[in-house]
Amino acid sequence: MSEVVNRRVNTLDALVAQLPDGTFLTSPELIAPYSGDWSGEYRGSALAVARPRNRDEVSVVMAYCHANQINVVPQGGLTGLVGGAVPRQELVVSLERMDRVRSVSPIDFSLVAEAGCVLQNAKDRALEADCILPITFGAQGSCRIGGNIATNAGGFNVLRYGMTRDLVLGLEAVLPDGRIWNGLKTLRKNNTGYDLKQLFIGSEGTLGIITAAAFKIFPRPQQIETVLIGLGSVEDAMALYARARRDCSDLLTAFELILRVGIDIAVSARSDLLDPLSQVCPVYVLMEVSGGGRIDVRSMVEGFLADAAELIIDGTMASSEAQSQRLWLLRETMVEAQGRGGRYLRSDVSVSISRLAEFIKDALIELNIRYPSALPVTYGHVGDGNVHLNVVPPLNMPPEDIDAFFHAAEATLFEVVDRHDGSISAEHGIGLGKRGAFLQRVDDVTLDIARSIKNSFDPHQILSQGRIYGARATTEVNSR
Amino acid sequence: MSEVVNRRVNTLDALVAQLPDGTFLTSPELIAPYSGDWSGEYRGSALAVARPRNRDEVSVVMAYCHANQINVVPQGGLTGLVGGAVPRQELVVSLERMDRVRSVSPIDFSLVAEAGCVLQNAKDRALEADCILPITFGAQGSCRIGGNIATNAGGFNVLRYGMTRDLVLGLEAVLPDGRIWNGLKTLRKNNTGYDLKQLFIGSEGTLGIITAAAFKIFPRPQQIETVLIGLGSVEDAMALYARARRDCSDLLTAFELILRVGIDIAVSARSDLLDPLSQVCPVYVLMEVSGGGRIDVRSMVEGFLADAAELIIDGTMASSEAQSQRLWLLRETMVEAQGRGGRYLRSDVSVSISRLAEFIKDALIELNIRYPSALPVTYGHVGDGNVHLNVVPPLNMPPEDIDAFFHAAEATLFEVVDRHDGSISAEHGIGLGKRGAFLQRVDDVTLDIARSIKNSFDPHQILSQGRIYGARATTEVNSR
Repeated sequence: MSEVVNRRVNTLDALVAQLPDGTFLTSPELIAPYSGDWSGEYRGSALAVARPRNRDEVSVVMAYCHANQINVVPQGGLTGLVGGAVPRQELVVSLERMDRVRSVSPIDFSLVAEAGCVLQNAKDRALEADCILPITFGAQGSCRIGGNIATNAGGFNVLRYGMTRDLVLGLEAVLPDGRIWNGLKTLRKNNTGYDLKQLFIGSEGTLGIITAAAFKIFPRPQQIETVLIGLGSVEDAMALYARARRDCSDLLTAFELILRVGIDIAVSARSDLLDPLSQVCPVYVLMEVSGGGRIDVRSMVEGFLADAAELIIDGTMASSEAQSQRLWLLRETMVEAQGRGGRYLRSDVSVSISRLAEFIKDALIELNIRYPSALPVTYGHVGDGNVHLNVVPPLNMPPEDIDAFFHAAEATLFEVVDRHDGSISAEHGIGLGKRGAFLQRVDDVTLDIARSIKNSFDPHQILSQGRIYGARATTEVNSR
Repeated sequence: MSEVVNRRVNTLDALVAQLPDGTFLTSPELIAPYSGDWSGEYRGSALAVARPRNRDEVSVVMAYCHANQINVVPQGGLTGLVGGAVPRQELVVSLERMDRVRSVSPIDFSLVAEAGCVLQNAKDRALEADCILPITFGAQGSCRIGGNIATNAGGFNVLRYGMTRDLVLGLEAVLPDGRIWNGLKTLRKNNTGYDLKQLFIGSEGTLGIITAAAFKIFPRPQQIETVLIGLGSVEDAMALYARARRDCSDLLTAFELILRVGIDIAVSARSDLLDPLSQVCPVYVLMEVSGGGRIDVRSMVEGFLADAAELIIDGTMASSEAQSQRLWLLRETMVEAQGRGGRYLRSDVSVSISRLAEFIKDALIELNIRYPSALPVTYGHVGDGNVHLNVVPPLNMPPEDIDAFFHAAEATLFEVVDRHDGSISAEHGIGLGKRGAFLQRVDDVTLDIARSIKNSFDPHQILSQGRIYGARATTEVNSR
């Protein structure tokens, strides 16, 4: 940290003078909200906060910081969960004032927005044009699209519509030295040279600050069917998934796995939530299928369920939008209540679909052997091989022991991920939180290529310094 | 060219000795087939041809060539159409002996194959597992998947399944210095660091030699409906497209535009092809919609067509697979016969969908003003905004004038593309053929980033030298 402090210039006065009044926040009370993330797991401190109103102002900030070797971290909605946007004595560049949707075209099926646009606002604008922007997850009311792109956000609808990467048609970004890279096209196909936007997507703010983007949007489905299905095992859930993809013509929009403990958590947390099925099942799937007006989606799903009857213990199909929302409320409540009001270890891993059932079994056995009083909560987007296998510490654990517990439980989990040739981060990325575990696993060729790309974009290492590929530290003590 | 010759070491003997007998071809008659492309438009000469059997042999070749500064060009099926794989006094590394499909999983919906696998073979193997590998275009019987990935191939099914980029789950590549980069995963989601495979995809063999890849595959559709529709204008075709996407729930797999002249060409070329509709229409759309067994695809399409009746002059819906093949035969015959047995200018441009109709009109007017005796042939994947607007030279043009005509007609066309903010290469890439036009258009920031990436991968500039980003030459005299 001392290195960071030493390299920065102690005054931003010359930069402040170049930009309109109100661009910068410097008082401790005003910058506090920019210094920690939504989860509360990461807290840092900001040198100051710049709130540019357009890409040219971002460019001015970066050119100055490049020339003066001031460290910068770009910031969206602070919902990233791995600490990537939490400042460590850095200048925060918040995109919050660049929040406009610039255009929506239901003919091009495209939407262009500034990077600070809240995802929900972009989604709402697409809906006004009878289209959907399919990126969908819990934080959509506060996350910002620049952050979604920088972290290649996933969510519920990846199965049908892909990750954020698959939905980006074009990008505009300011490079660490202040130059503007303009790749803001809405073309569906363009094979003219390296697809440089792919580098910014998922690079977690280390290669540039995304300032605007063009997304693919899709016709709004006119029928959505939601089903909650109780099954005997994760194996059965995966067998059901393979049949669902075929039977439902790739119109599956969600296929969420929830182990029983998640239902218990939800039902205990809200008195207005009842156990959703008449039988208690070890495993549940929340499935959503959607289509246009010319397909009878309901009878398609009913036919699929009837044919798969031997796999299914019990189930319920929503017969109204209100009922559908009740089913999703179970899942949301489980996510909110899983920590029993305290901290819990979040994870976000993936394996090949064919190994998912075995992986979950192995991981739960391993965690149970080592931490028998901890509570694992398992759910996820299993059609993508992606599971959130979270671990709630034993109820009586002293607060000061929790960091060490998280570290150990995560190491246990990641060892099982390694055995199944999986990924330690399917959705959330590396940021600061997973850097240690990532650097232990990444091969030298990958590291060398990635660092040489980083060096060529950011020779002074001023942008999101230390995130993802930061030097291997012998003691990785992060905020968490 | 002299620079190239000077830089290479004149003997490959030490390399030949390191690899099994039969790996290298050196005699002029044996290397001749590797020296020109399928179109006949590009012809070069190879120093020799290496035919490695696995990635380690590719690694040995590249390490040697890197150490000795021997220029190398990787080669698949030679169907790329822009000369990228045609050798210019380079060592050809042909992937033809690395042609195995390693695995197909109908549970993971993935297929892993070596880079030299012919696309059709990979597609056939997917079908055996009741799945499809959706990359589909004319050259699929001879192109190889490494080339498909290196050029981010498009084709008929992009509308539903995406470009090749969207279908690649993982990659393995040998770097220009011989190191192996292993990114051959079949995970659907993996947000651990920069997604380096994206750099290789579409980089046209300039950053590494792809040796194997994992693809997404999809459930085989059980119903496919094919319709040929006659319309009054391109505007009407685009209006029909917007309705088709909504009405057919994104189950559109193809939406091909053909202007009338294409039908004339096909019908003249084969006596067994009749004018397909009872009325002659200015514009035709060949549409394909596919789904699983639980959707009545036929009635969905019929309902869509009935509702869109005011846009449609005439149409025919295939009632058997044989009839469907007859409709596609029209398109294939047009493509094969368009040159009237001689050379023609191929193009492959794109604009935003909303500008496509106006773009086609402007381009045809401009070409007609400047080259009234030339014959433009216009068809393409218009749901992607992508059109092949080819130009057949006047019948009486002396062969020695054709190169200059191509150059001028292409410049005319690209000027119209620029006016509509489009791409001069939607599918085929830059290679050698479009390098001059590309370098005139690319901005300095893009060029700087791309060249610094190229330099960090290939400091000696030995791999696919001069393709895409080669130095701006004052006289761009390529093979064509």
